[in-house]
Amino acid sequence: MEESVLKIQALIWTGNSLQILDQRQLPEQLHYDDYTDAIGVTEAIKTMRVRGAPAIGIAAAYAVALSVKQHYPLHPSDWRMRVNIDMKCLAHSRPTAVNLSWALIRMQQLLDSLTIEPNRNPCIEVEDLALKIHADDIAANYTMGELGADIIADAKGILTHCNAGALATGGYGTALGVIRSAYYRQSRQIYADETRPWLQGARLTVWELAQDGIPSTLIADSAAAWLMNSQAIQWIVVGADRIAANGDVANKIGTYGLAVLARYHHCKLMVVAPSSTLDGNIASGQQIVIEQREQNELLPECYSQSNLAVNAWNPVFDVTPAELISVIVTERGVIFNPSVQGIRKLL
Amino acid sequence: MEESVLKIQALIWTGNSLQILDQRQLPEQLHYDDYTDAIGVTEAIKTMRVRGAPAIGIAAAYAVALSVKQHYPLHPSDWRMRVNIDMKCLAHSRPTAVNLSWALIRMQQLLDSLTIEPNRNPCIEVEDLALKIHADDIAANYTMGELGADIIADAKGILTHCNAGALATGGYGTALGVIRSAYYRQSRQIYADETRPWLQGARLTVWELAQDGIPSTLIADSAAAWLMNSQAIQWIVVGADRIAANGDVANKIGTYGLAVLARYHHCKLMVVAPSSTLDGNIASGQQIVIEQREQNELLPECYSQSNLAVNAWNPVFDVTPAELISVIVTERGVIFNPSVQGIRKLL
Repeated sequence: MEESVLKIQALIWTGNSLQILDQRQLPEQLHYDDYTDAIGVTEAIKTMRVRGAPAIGIAAAYAVALSVKQHYPLHPSDWRMRVNIDMKCLAHSRPTAVNLSWALIRMQQLLDSLTIEPNRNPCIEVEDLALKIHADDIAANYTMGELGADIIADAKGILTHCNAGALATGGYGTALGVIRSAYYRQSRQIYADETRPWLQGARLTVWELAQDGIPSTLIADSAAAWLMNSQAIQWIVVGADRIAANGDVANKIGTYGLAVLARYHHCKLMVVAPSSTLDGNIASGQQIVIEQREQNELLPECYSQSNLAVNAWNPVFDVTPAELISVIVTERGVIFNPSVQGIRKLL
Repeated sequence: MEESVLKIQALIWTGNSLQILDQRQLPEQLHYDDYTDAIGVTEAIKTMRVRGAPAIGIAAAYAVALSVKQHYPLHPSDWRMRVNIDMKCLAHSRPTAVNLSWALIRMQQLLDSLTIEPNRNPCIEVEDLALKIHADDIAANYTMGELGADIIADAKGILTHCNAGALATGGYGTALGVIRSAYYRQSRQIYADETRPWLQGARLTVWELAQDGIPSTLIADSAAAWLMNSQAIQWIVVGADRIAANGDVANKIGTYGLAVLARYHHCKLMVVAPSSTLDGNIASGQQIVIEQREQNELLPECYSQSNLAVNAWNPVFDVTPAELISVIVTERGVIFNPSVQGIRKLL
């Protein structure tokens, strides 16, 4: 199992740079870009070279390390201001995933502590913290994998949506970590939604599972209800981009619909996310900002050159109310029938 | 309104050939292929140059006319056998839409009647019947448009799935006929699912509506639930490929999921189809044959050249049980809360 983490890595830290797998080119090309500053990493997040809430958080942590390494030696008097500017850009690169601001807050806390004890070397300390955030994420995924696999032990068929795998995290994956752990214990049928408009399921999830020798079956997003009707699946397992204090979950557009369909078909819904995805500052999912992306992700190209009265509505995420979620799995424990009390206990 | 029918034509009969709009090339290219025999039309149906249950039926009728025109003059002794072979090929071109066999049965009945009265000219009579089937379909669509528009008069937002428009019929459309009629009475917001894997919504529906000056908004299939949650729509209006005697409806994959989601969100579901789509010989939707298409419609191309353990499940249609349908609209009348009695009354 350990090997599978190393096989697929969205992010590779070299010591002087962050290598980011350009996921837009998968599965055709396995191409890494090398980033030596925070501006570059910000751009990579914005353009979705790297995506997935935990991976975005880790990339941001490394970006802060790069920022300090760049500005501290050259600008000893105002390096903090320069790092702050970089961190602000990073904070605005994607709005919905809370792991991004969670990682930036942790880096900020470290930087603040360095002010108090002036003899410490910021370059080494920020790098160490970024590496720790990355390593902790992988460890959390292993823990969640085992916790989740215990719960879905009897499932003969499992459906996942988008990519909440090694590619979306530090390694091993959240939803795909659970699916990996469950599959390693016992073979079962894995289904993946293709997940329009970016096709993360088609391009990333089934590819990633196949790298580990786990067979999977791709379906059109709109075929999920018919699959449930055929009784082929008992569980839907997904990741999360932000979890509110009451257990409402923001995740890839389509998750909410799957949750409603699951309830109708007596399937169960599991959300797998590290505790860094929990946002205690937001009371319910209604306050979560939902990113809207470009219309041209949906519209055929020729429309943009025409005067046709055609537009598109392209929300990237939706919010699934806690009442439609069977269980949330975190590395700190699991919450059945998520509620304010359940989330508070874990935090 | 009459003009809009003429503006978008999937099928044009020239007298000696059938011109078929190659819908796979839309919206980039408006290209017609010219077919002079039934074999060509069969291939055009199989390869989805022409699609949509009513349009397939009309194309098959014209194909029989072409077959008779081809074989009758050249092979006076065995033209019937040759036409029969052509009709068998046509019958097997697509399995789910009943309009295909409905049109072939009507042509067969005409051919049988010609045996009894030997002095009639089959070439003229089959052509006349094909033209009548085409004209009747357009007339039926106008009737359904008005009947349906009466029912959804108060809807501020309407969602449709796939393309049940002029392109899928003889003209004006079934679901899009209702949407056209409703829009002409009063402006309202029209949403279209993009409809993977063939993207009929993105390539055909929003394009077709724009040709008639009706603005529409494209969404990813998986965004439909979130759209319903936002209360932007009150009705979902779709076509049908086959309707069983109990009111169960086979239609484009995704329709069933929309029906379940509609029920949860207190939206209503309208199915619009000419009476030729009603299949009194099938007791319920469970007996409807669901076409499965190639995996490569979903899988990225590079997988087929690899040994990756990846496959796809690609049903083209699903079956929506009558209990999830608010109303079926046909040219013979409407059936609220469809049932065996309601369908029987209409037939």
